Amino acid sequence: MNDKNDIIRSGNIANCEKFLEIISNKTPMVVIVIGNTETGKIPGISAAGANPEITDFTPAADIEYLYYNYCKTIDGVPVTPTGIPTPAVITKAVLDLTNMPLMALIGGVNILPQTPYISVGGIGGGDISKGNSVSDAEVVFENAKLFGENLAKSIEYLVIGESIAGGTTTAMGVLTALGYNAWTKVSSSLPENPLDLKQKIVKDGLKKNIILEENPISNALEAVSKMGDPMQAAALGLIAGSAPKVPILLAGGTQMAAIAALVKALDPKLLQNIAIGTTRWIIEDKGSDIQSLVNDIDSNLPILAANLNFSSMQSPGLQVYEQGIVKEGVGAGGCTIAALVSENNISLEQIHQKIEQNYEKLVQK
Amino acid sequence: MNDKNDIIRSGNIANCEKFLEIISNKTPMVVIVIGNTETGKIPGISAAGANPEITDFTPAADIEYLYYNYCKTIDGVPVTPTGIPTPAVITKAVLDLTNMPLMALIGGVNILPQTPYISVGGIGGGDISKGNSVSDAEVVFENAKLFGENLAKSIEYLVIGESIAGGTTTAMGVLTALGYNAWTKVSSSLPENPLDLKQKIVKDGLKKNIILEENPISNALEAVSKMGDPMQAAALGLIAGSAPKVPILLAGGTQMAAIAALVKALDPKLLQNIAIGTTRWIIEDKGSDIQSLVNDIDSNLPILAANLNFSSMQSPGLQVYEQGIVKEGVGAGGCTIAALVSENNISLEQIHQKIEQNYEKLVQK
Repeated sequence: MNDKNDIIRSGNIANCEKFLEIISNKTPMVVIVIGNTETGKIPGISAAGANPEITDFTPAADIEYLYYNYCKTIDGVPVTPTGIPTPAVITKAVLDLTNMPLMALIGGVNILPQTPYISVGGIGGGDISKGNSVSDAEVVFENAKLFGENLAKSIEYLVIGESIAGGTTTAMGVLTALGYNAWTKVSSSLPENPLDLKQKIVKDGLKKNIILEENPISNALEAVSKMGDPMQAAALGLIAGSAPKVPILLAGGTQMAAIAALVKALDPKLLQNIAIGTTRWIIEDKGSDIQSLVNDIDSNLPILAANLNFSSMQSPGLQVYEQGIVKEGVGAGGCTIAALVSENNISLEQIHQKIEQNYEKLVQK
Repeated sequence: MNDKNDIIRSGNIANCEKFLEIISNKTPMVVIVIGNTETGKIPGISAAGANPEITDFTPAADIEYLYYNYCKTIDGVPVTPTGIPTPAVITKAVLDLTNMPLMALIGGVNILPQTPYISVGGIGGGDISKGNSVSDAEVVFENAKLFGENLAKSIEYLVIGESIAGGTTTAMGVLTALGYNAWTKVSSSLPENPLDLKQKIVKDGLKKNIILEENPISNALEAVSKMGDPMQAAALGLIAGSAPKVPILLAGGTQMAAIAALVKALDPKLLQNIAIGTTRWIIEDKGSDIQSLVNDIDSNLPILAANLNFSSMQSPGLQVYEQGIVKEGVGAGGCTIAALVSENNISLEQIHQKIEQNYEKLVQK
């Protein structure tokens, strides 16, 4: 077992310890669920790409980077508008240091990764502010569930990460549709969370879908299909199929809180086998509040956070993570936690070093 | 362990025992690799569909049947021109009786299954007699290899089955291209093996590709891309990625002998972790000769055959399997073997009963 300080416990502390014990010395299957939406291309909404149009390429490029150590779909790796690299550099370091298998599950995208991937029949999502969200949520959910049922028969536990631009906006969308007060609680990959813009988009969506805050939706798939994104439909299906059999670490920030809310709407029992695994940057973020969100969903839910700290990094591109840019994504926090408790006995120090090594090689290219 | 007579040992008998011991009490991942080709639509070449055009739908329908117990892409289940059901009824019975997970890997098809599936970037194959075979063999191989490397990290062993119409003709194609005398040795789903037609197609293909029998191809992927099918490209990649780590049961007849020949051309060492698992109908077939083929490829290779016997079946549609119709496919023989040695301790009698039960329900529909 690693240094106790390497993983921050939040949410239900007793359940944090219990969950960490369950996954200790085990190897997870890492599934990164990806999606694209028109919501993600609204200017100012996402830092998952140098400009709005390129966000369509970001999830595919993230998967390619994890598999090949370089991207095929774009030159270089995905960066924010100010050139800060994708959090996939964290996930990649973990995969390099451990023996964790990786699969990519396509929720629905406009650009497919040039890698092996699992299709569940989805297409790219719409713009929730225009009342278009996920037209095929049910098909995606059912196929992902079937895949999850089969996958769960061969694995010890599951880490689910995501890559989707605009994902915190659609997280606010489904959370609000399900009746949670999420207006100021979802996170952002930008240093300044554009909450006003997100709130406007979500409010427009609620209006278009005639959803009243005082009369929320109770059905998970209806919430996704009206106010969500294809990543959510696929992740929810994957969980519905596998959580009855294996523990699941939801590797992400407030987007994964939205997934937890959807799981609760679908079948609250499934939450007993689930924890959220994220980064220190998320749980210390002043611009969002994952603890409050999770508390409203299920106060029993463990929140684990990898105590990643880039303040000693030599590379400015990594150091600025400490200023709250990017924060999380592509399963970064959850994969780090999985590595820390794995039988490989990886230390946070090793992960930090590997991240910097990998990043330096990227920059040299 | 089951009754010893339930699994027929052929090829290298000592290695048969060794392989059976290795997989005993383990649960495999079952991956069915599917493909379509224009070769498969040449009239008279395949019984994998009621007529040539519908063979495009057969692999997708087989996968749907395994997952849902009914097909979405077609009415009913795939049948031969005389109405005999797909060997997927055998595979399905095994999956119903055991806890084996199932995945569908798309080598390259014209009709996708309405299920979750793994894409490795392939498209439907051409007509080898016209010199068109698998244009994207390398991409399919590389992606399938990457998938196999990751899958192998989470499984005990792998059963690889196939569904592709015209697959024994493309098996003859690659075997001949690789220098094996396969002219009279590949099997057929038809009661009378149309060997003359297959030979003509393969000879036309060799001519178009300027491949001389006395100067065969040594490169596995070149053989597939000139004379093979997309199933082979994907299966070969899957094996290349996973055989270094887990044992593999190639679940099929002479098509899997062709895969073994391709594996040998790629890397003979990989064959040490491989066995062929098929049905009694294949190894007792007078119209083909899997033993001789395997002996030419590698005399150390174990050939295992499930001692399936439908002579006591009440349903005429199953009983005629004893006349040499269908014989094998969709992993039927290999999955049966996996069930017989599994910790579930399934008997051949139970499998026979379950097949008839499932088939009766199908017919009633």
